[in-house]
Amino acid sequence: MNIRLYNARILTMKSSEILTGEVWVQNERILYVGDGKDTDDVYQRLKLGSILWDREIDCEGNLLMPGFKDAHTHSGMTLLRSYADDLPLQDWLTKQVFPIEAKMDGEMIYHLTKLAILEYLTSGITAVFDMYLTPDTVAKACVEMGMRCVQVSGMSGQDDFAQSLERTERCYLQYNHDDPLLSYFIGFHAEYTCSRALLESVAALAHKYKAPVYTHLAETRSEVEGCRERYGMSPAKLFDSLGIFDYGGGGYHCVWMDDEDMEIFQKRGLSAVTNPGSNTKLASGIAPISEYLKRGINVAIGTDGPASNNCLDMFREMFLVTGLAKLREMDASAVDAWEVLKMATVNGSKAMNLPDTDVLEAGKLADIIMIDLRQPNMQPLNNIPKNLVYSGSKQNVKMTMIQGKILYENGRFAEAYDVDAIYGKANEIITSLR
Amino acid sequence: MNIRLYNARILTMKSSEILTGEVWVQNERILYVGDGKDTDDVYQRLKLGSILWDREIDCEGNLLMPGFKDAHTHSGMTLLRSYADDLPLQDWLTKQVFPIEAKMDGEMIYHLTKLAILEYLTSGITAVFDMYLTPDTVAKACVEMGMRCVQVSGMSGQDDFAQSLERTERCYLQYNHDDPLLSYFIGFHAEYTCSRALLESVAALAHKYKAPVYTHLAETRSEVEGCRERYGMSPAKLFDSLGIFDYGGGGYHCVWMDDEDMEIFQKRGLSAVTNPGSNTKLASGIAPISEYLKRGINVAIGTDGPASNNCLDMFREMFLVTGLAKLREMDASAVDAWEVLKMATVNGSKAMNLPDTDVLEAGKLADIIMIDLRQPNMQPLNNIPKNLVYSGSKQNVKMTMIQGKILYENGRFAEAYDVDAIYGKANEIITSLR
Repeated sequence: MNIRLYNARILTMKSSEILTGEVWVQNERILYVGDGKDTDDVYQRLKLGSILWDREIDCEGNLLMPGFKDAHTHSGMTLLRSYADDLPLQDWLTKQVFPIEAKMDGEMIYHLTKLAILEYLTSGITAVFDMYLTPDTVAKACVEMGMRCVQVSGMSGQDDFAQSLERTERCYLQYNHDDPLLSYFIGFHAEYTCSRALLESVAALAHKYKAPVYTHLAETRSEVEGCRERYGMSPAKLFDSLGIFDYGGGGYHCVWMDDEDMEIFQKRGLSAVTNPGSNTKLASGIAPISEYLKRGINVAIGTDGPASNNCLDMFREMFLVTGLAKLREMDASAVDAWEVLKMATVNGSKAMNLPDTDVLEAGKLADIIMIDLRQPNMQPLNNIPKNLVYSGSKQNVKMTMIQGKILYENGRFAEAYDVDAIYGKANEIITSLR
Repeated sequence: MNIRLYNARILTMKSSEILTGEVWVQNERILYVGDGKDTDDVYQRLKLGSILWDREIDCEGNLLMPGFKDAHTHSGMTLLRSYADDLPLQDWLTKQVFPIEAKMDGEMIYHLTKLAILEYLTSGITAVFDMYLTPDTVAKACVEMGMRCVQVSGMSGQDDFAQSLERTERCYLQYNHDDPLLSYFIGFHAEYTCSRALLESVAALAHKYKAPVYTHLAETRSEVEGCRERYGMSPAKLFDSLGIFDYGGGGYHCVWMDDEDMEIFQKRGLSAVTNPGSNTKLASGIAPISEYLKRGINVAIGTDGPASNNCLDMFREMFLVTGLAKLREMDASAVDAWEVLKMATVNGSKAMNLPDTDVLEAGKLADIIMIDLRQPNMQPLNNIPKNLVYSGSKQNVKMTMIQGKILYENGRFAEAYDVDAIYGKANEIITSLR
């Protein structure tokens, strides 16, 4: 498909400048970003002669920008949205979440991932970093629906040890080549769910493939205290001392990090993925985002799974990142809107190893969203980046395109999706598992 | 207009039970809420014979509930949305907000209030508690657009003292009778902007009319500290000692309240209106909501004005109320979703003295919203109230009805509104004042 998007405002994310012009998409990639005034030149320079457009879309002055990157989620947990909230963390996890998860199979997770994908699209999320139980059926759901998905294994000592490692290696080899929408990284659940032997095996696997490693890290104070009791050091230091981070990677949550932990992140070039909605709802704490930024650590944003958030909405996360930083520092100037917008786009691409999705530029993948500026919450147009972070909501997502395909437009999903069937399946599954 | 809403789920807010059935609206009021199975009986009991419906709306299983009450806002500040953010509070207020506000006139505020009303409607807000500079043009905008508006005077020592009092009394007499959509209460800006003499005059006015009084209260730590230096007591105690709260009323923000302040709120039956979006963005702090609830204080929710929030979105506020309480108490079970939903509806009605708008019941005013449950963020339907608070967004507002009139439906505003002209005016005004 060749698609011409014209009469647009454009935020490329290479700078905070708002351009006026056009974005051209040829199949899965961006062909041109510019003012559209030099079209003959452009055709000639691109040696195209001319292009037959499959669609020409008048953006009516609305904003085109790179899609949001959800850098930490568990898509299949849509099942448990609003299933058990307002409970202390341990009760929630052990009495409600784990017993249901133990009964979930790959086919269920296939359907529940589809439900999550619908929601990502409504929030302009064009790529997710997903850790969940059945990577094959997650991959199937994403490819079928056209979602870009970076999977990461969630190895833990609760699984069969050898099987868990073996599956991770098999997926690592398979899903980095299987489909252009998919990639796969080595990861483990968290220090408190893994034995030392498993952590050492993770390090060995990372070394074998010179691969980065990702994990839940320093989410709660008690997790860090427990690790100090068990190993005499913080989780970040433990992982680093085992060689787990020798080829990079990062941590999800990163709420309770000390100076030494941050130095490890700097030294290894790790990404800190913040999940403020989840950290708020589960009363885990407020991450020290200002300090990460001061140290030049790459900060990305994740929604976490819908059981702990409960929605998959990058707008709410963006407001929370800056809002909670302001509260933490008691400084209304902490972590400004532009920094947050970078976290939700370019920093996410970096954390997820998707360099071709970070900005709007010729040659990059066409993961593009259109933001409806003709909604009252975007008016007046004093400052579009600040409007996005402080006032934006799902209601403003007018179009979501992944890999050149429009999957959500003007409140409607791609025709190929059977939305009612997806909703029906989710309700059927929770009823069957209760 | 007689409107029949059928095939609905119904959350009356009298309990958390979800009914299935119909809501009938006759002109400005609710005629019937029930399962719709006893229609002949109902017609007979209501002595109607039959009703000629102007519209019959198939709700397709979506949810009807009372509209949200925004219990503290400054609508006209839409002008300054994203105009000056990420600044320390004092710089923001004195260098950016005040100089522009000094140049705003009644006609400008008329147009800017209209912009705010569009946004309220997209978030299912059916009544606002508005404090702003030109009450007559605010009233005009609300009546023209059909918005329910409780105004409150924002007297301060910066205005001409006598004029300010006189205008408040004139508005109090006029706008409690002028139009059924309007009401008006006595209020003043805050302790730190009023002289003692003005505060005493406010008390005298409250006594004259046996009227409640509202004000910004304990928003920042420095405000409370300043008051203690000036008067040797907290603002709440000062106001109470002057007799300002003898006929009730309440405070906006209420972040920095001590035990004695809370006892005054209990004793006088005052409402605490929390504004978590604004308190977050301006780094003011987290209000002790759990303690208010324990003491039986009526807690309502406000967005505050769009210069400090920057959006007028009850969904974001609802998540923040519970999320911030959970963080403050470090307890994931603090302030559950149902409490929050009551704050956004029935408690708001109480704080704003709008008893006929609190629940869905025959005889109440028809201020009703329809929530789209057929969106991915509302699925599966494990728990609708929790879905609303933890996962809801503007995208879920399918219809907003005020006083029996549908003003927003399926993403479209009432035909009578000239939306483009409202946006145009807002941009024109900020350009002219820069």
